[in-house]
Amino acid sequence: MASSVLTCSKFSPSPSPFPSPKSSPFLRPSTSLRFPPSKLPSFPSFPSYSLPKSPLISSSLNPSPPSPLRRPHYIPNHIPDPNYVRVFDTTLRDGEQSPGATLTSKEKLDIARQLARLGVDIIEAGFPAASKDDFEAVKAIAKEVGNAEDENGYVPVICGLSRCNEKDIKAAWEAVKYAKRPRIHTFIATSGIHLEYKLRKSKAEVLDIARSMVRYARSLGCNDVEFSPEDAGSDIVVSWDPTRSDREFLYEILGEVIKAGATTLNIPDTVGITVPGEFGQLIADIKANTPGIENVVISTHCQNDLGLSTGNTLAGACAGARQVEVTINGIGERAGNASLEEVVMAIKCRGEHVLGGLYTGINTQHIVMASKMVEEYTGLHVQPHKAIVGANAFAHESGIHQDGMLKHKGTYEIISPEEIGLERSNEAGIVLGKLSGRHALRDRLKELGYELDDEQLGNIFWLFKAVAEQKKRVTDADLIALVSDEVFQPEVVWKLDDLQVTCGTLGLSTATIKLIDASGTEHVACSVGTGPVDSAYKAVDLITKEPVTLLEYSMNSVTEGIDAIATTRVVVRAEKGHLSTQALTGEAVHRTFSGTGAGMDIVVSSVKAYIGALNKMLGFKEQNQTKASPERLPVSV
Amino acid sequence: MASSVLTCSKFSPSPSPFPSPKSSPFLRPSTSLRFPPSKLPSFPSFPSYSLPKSPLISSSLNPSPPSPLRRPHYIPNHIPDPNYVRVFDTTLRDGEQSPGATLTSKEKLDIARQLARLGVDIIEAGFPAASKDDFEAVKAIAKEVGNAEDENGYVPVICGLSRCNEKDIKAAWEAVKYAKRPRIHTFIATSGIHLEYKLRKSKAEVLDIARSMVRYARSLGCNDVEFSPEDAGSDIVVSWDPTRSDREFLYEILGEVIKAGATTLNIPDTVGITVPGEFGQLIADIKANTPGIENVVISTHCQNDLGLSTGNTLAGACAGARQVEVTINGIGERAGNASLEEVVMAIKCRGEHVLGGLYTGINTQHIVMASKMVEEYTGLHVQPHKAIVGANAFAHESGIHQDGMLKHKGTYEIISPEEIGLERSNEAGIVLGKLSGRHALRDRLKELGYELDDEQLGNIFWLFKAVAEQKKRVTDADLIALVSDEVFQPEVVWKLDDLQVTCGTLGLSTATIKLIDASGTEHVACSVGTGPVDSAYKAVDLITKEPVTLLEYSMNSVTEGIDAIATTRVVVRAEKGHLSTQALTGEAVHRTFSGTGAGMDIVVSSVKAYIGALNKMLGFKEQNQTKASPERLPVSV
Repeated sequence: MASSVLTCSKFSPSPSPFPSPKSSPFLRPSTSLRFPPSKLPSFPSFPSYSLPKSPLISSSLNPSPPSPLRRPHYIPNHIPDPNYVRVFDTTLRDGEQSPGATLTSKEKLDIARQLARLGVDIIEAGFPAASKDDFEAVKAIAKEVGNAEDENGYVPVICGLSRCNEKDIKAAWEAVKYAKRPRIHTFIATSGIHLEYKLRKSKAEVLDIARSMVRYARSLGCNDVEFSPEDAGSDIVVSWDPTRSDREFLYEILGEVIKAGATTLNIPDTVGITVPGEFGQLIADIKANTPGIENVVISTHCQNDLGLSTGNTLAGACAGARQVEVTINGIGERAGNASLEEVVMAIKCRGEHVLGGLYTGINTQHIVMASKMVEEYTGLHVQPHKAIVGANAFAHESGIHQDGMLKHKGTYEIISPEEIGLERSNEAGIVLGKLSGRHALRDRLKELGYELDDEQLGNIFWLFKAVAEQKKRVTDADLIALVSDEVFQPEVVWKLDDLQVTCGTLGLSTATIKLIDASGTEHVACSVGTGPVDSAYKAVDLITKEPVTLLEYSMNSVTEGIDAIATTRVVVRAEKGHLSTQALTGEAVHRTFSGTGAGMDIVVSSVKAYIGALNKMLGFKEQNQTKASPERLPVSV
Repeated sequence: MASSVLTCSKFSPSPSPFPSPKSSPFLRPSTSLRFPPSKLPSFPSFPSYSLPKSPLISSSLNPSPPSPLRRPHYIPNHIPDPNYVRVFDTTLRDGEQSPGATLTSKEKLDIARQLARLGVDIIEAGFPAASKDDFEAVKAIAKEVGNAEDENGYVPVICGLSRCNEKDIKAAWEAVKYAKRPRIHTFIATSGIHLEYKLRKSKAEVLDIARSMVRYARSLGCNDVEFSPEDAGSDIVVSWDPTRSDREFLYEILGEVIKAGATTLNIPDTVGITVPGEFGQLIADIKANTPGIENVVISTHCQNDLGLSTGNTLAGACAGARQVEVTINGIGERAGNASLEEVVMAIKCRGEHVLGGLYTGINTQHIVMASKMVEEYTGLHVQPHKAIVGANAFAHESGIHQDGMLKHKGTYEIISPEEIGLERSNEAGIVLGKLSGRHALRDRLKELGYELDDEQLGNIFWLFKAVAEQKKRVTDADLIALVSDEVFQPEVVWKLDDLQVTCGTLGLSTATIKLIDASGTEHVACSVGTGPVDSAYKAVDLITKEPVTLLEYSMNSVTEGIDAIATTRVVVRAEKGHLSTQALTGEAVHRTFSGTGAGMDIVVSSVKAYIGALNKMLGFKEQNQTKASPERLPVSV
């Protein structure tokens, strides 16, 4: 497809005879500070940008395909091209701290590989000090994904989060150091409300901790250190509030960590309260007032509590930030983070014409696959009207038959589905029937983004045959569900062999189940329950004897028709053990585990999902009880 | 709760000795046009606002509760208080056009009542020309909700959409004229791409149509007429694209419709492509360049294709728009619209301090109930990380046990759950057991926002007793699911009497079903299928003989625990008839219908959901085949 990295291809239907101005003096936003921010009263005035929009600009003369050559050479504290925006994905760290989104090491590795396919510049792979599992997952990603350099020299930076203490920083370094480009990301709270209620430290103490811990990170041999003043965003909002710290302290601490060796300064709006103009102004002010800021990269990290994370992130980039912290599907605690797909597609569609020439190195055709993988593994659904990746985001994907195609797609479509790797179901949905062979299946799966080994393919082929016997046509969505069921599964401890259930309005449902354990031994149990799932799960519990609480249970059919394949997701919480440390609060939390199952019988798929969640839980190592002790005061040096 | 309409109560923990400046010269954004927009090249520079943020401002001295007296008197073309922002809810029109979101007249009336409880200024109740059902629904809302004036004189404006033709406008007027404050909203495409591909008309023709149709609407006796130039937002983006119209034409057509009698001018970003600074600049430019603009109210209508609808809406308001068009949960076609809850809470939290004093008349404590009702009726789920109304939006609602409460809620919470009508589950979740009586149930339901008549309460009481017999504790979520099952249901045509199903890994599921029709006659059928739901639905089909396609099937447990109540939702499409006219494209589309069922047996609840969807479909009147003819050229006068 002949789309440019910089422009939304839908908007250049006819070639313009005029070339793009390559070096307009207007291309970079002017951060004209009309009120000196250091004087009182400080005005949160909206940043004023002077961006050109020539009526004659069209990039369709230069339909340069997304070329990895456009990605500037990686230097920790400097980006050779001033218009390049680094994409820092924190799905595996901030996203994974969403309720129920616990990921196994294997799942994290799968997602990290997909993030590398997307071409994200930095993968925040986890919070190594949280637990032994987190440590091992980051280390595995650093070793494999952090060394898989492609022919153009691209390899993602692998980053580990740490609080501002030696133990955390040491753990982060021990995990990421195997990567070709390792980074340590350390943070400390700087707002008054945090200083008072969480850290119980003075500003001078916090300044000293930040400086010495950045220095410590560098001393370990890490030349790529990111520092975040937590809750920075809120300071500008409520600097009238005596319990929050002021801007001057922010400039001071940022200046000090630069001197100590920080290479990226990340500005989080931790509580998601800023509006775009305001957040942009914060970035502009930091750029204008922090000593040594020209020697580092400024980053944004916007929470979505008011639904403004994408707008804030773009405003930050316009004001001078050149790293954006995002997650796939916008997952994260509470209302989540800025979505990678929204930020990246907004920059792709509007970067050249209204965002001063900004661009990223993301290969957007891997977005849909990344979105589906994260949805599967975390169990966090995206709503049908989610921008870019929602089921309804493209009109023709809505499942509603329209009596005619729109006369001109561009009238209502600013992004073509193919651009993000989405096939049009009308054109490509019906692909395989029961006479299709293994080769056709492998080809189609490859087109859908799945590269499977022979064993996986063999398993899926038999599942496919079983479905094709019963369904007239097997669609892409069916295939994806089958792959999810096969590939996105944890290692097997318990395996479902047989299930038989009766249920109905009588109310006394009965289930008989046969499970096979890791040694191959068969176990049979039966139970009554309030419904078919209740009775079947109780029968499973009689065999596995693992006390868990079912937190969530959901199911979606993936295709049209009564004979659709349904995918079931469950989230369970272990009743004992399985503790992890929450990065921001420092508290110990019980992990939760999700499982999925697909099939045409919803009771069978429900049981498969439950067993999947149990297997995931049982696969988690438990050696980390000392590290994950429920310490109440998280930050100490 | 002592929260102010203007400020986020979480941010005024300590009273300030200084009063709020009531009439600062900085309170309104200055729309300083640094480049004359009528000259080429036109610069989409970000609007420059000068907003004060005194370090000493705190509103906690004036903890005025949300008072309806703050809402200025309604005059169609003028708002007496320059800081008041009208909230125009289009859930029932734009939201209802989402795939699968078809609402019955009763459901629309329920939602309209809830919107009136919220205090929205304008309810866009539908597109009366779409079908007889749409017409009747708007009329019913106009008659009831449009006349239910409260003690403070508040009654919502009831608005009907129409294309720019006499038939549509007449239909809209005939539907809304029963309201105390009726409004006609008419629109026509103005961008070049639409003119060329959709309307096939010249600019002069479009101008003439717009002018004469606004005049026609006024001539019917309607003194409140809103006009929208469709795809206005995109013009500024791609005015370099010769297929899109230019700004001058926009100013011209807006000026002409003002002369013709329009009272509100709505500026839609129909394809959701603008970024906040750019959309704000569009509003500022229109305000500065449209003749007679001071005599009308400017409105925003932002689609969410890039995830920027909330940011764009706020930018529009900052630049001078005083009406915002939004939907509950942000539903709508493709990626939906700006969310009412996000826009309203952003204005509530930040209006006074960073948005120049803006405020709305929304009683935010009804937000959660409105969100749940719209989710139930439309079948459009909100994702767990949806801002404001998602299940995870408030940390303590996450279902994850934390080993201690945060030391100070304000550290991570910018809105208290109570502010939007959400109970804290830890404190208020466990309310009723099997010994609770009818009175306790009624009281609790009332606290949850449900006012039921005696018959409804009676039915729910027996459902509640049945659940309480089998569950240790009945939570608020259980109750809400039961109410949904009872109250959010269509009129009964078919009723489930008995169901018996066997299923399992053997694969040949068998279902026997007994349905009762409207006359009380029993019908029994049995069927085999690929799973329990497939076999049961096939058995239903054998009885009802209604050819439908199952488009979506989903299920969620609403409470923790294996014995949870699960709610099933299905969306079906009729195979014949049930046509409606799509407002924007003018094409005839087959309606889709959703149904829900709740219960502890997922097979039973699945069947209840399916029968609910069938009943909804059968309850739809069919007299509208002539009006909904599949005309391909929608706009004619």
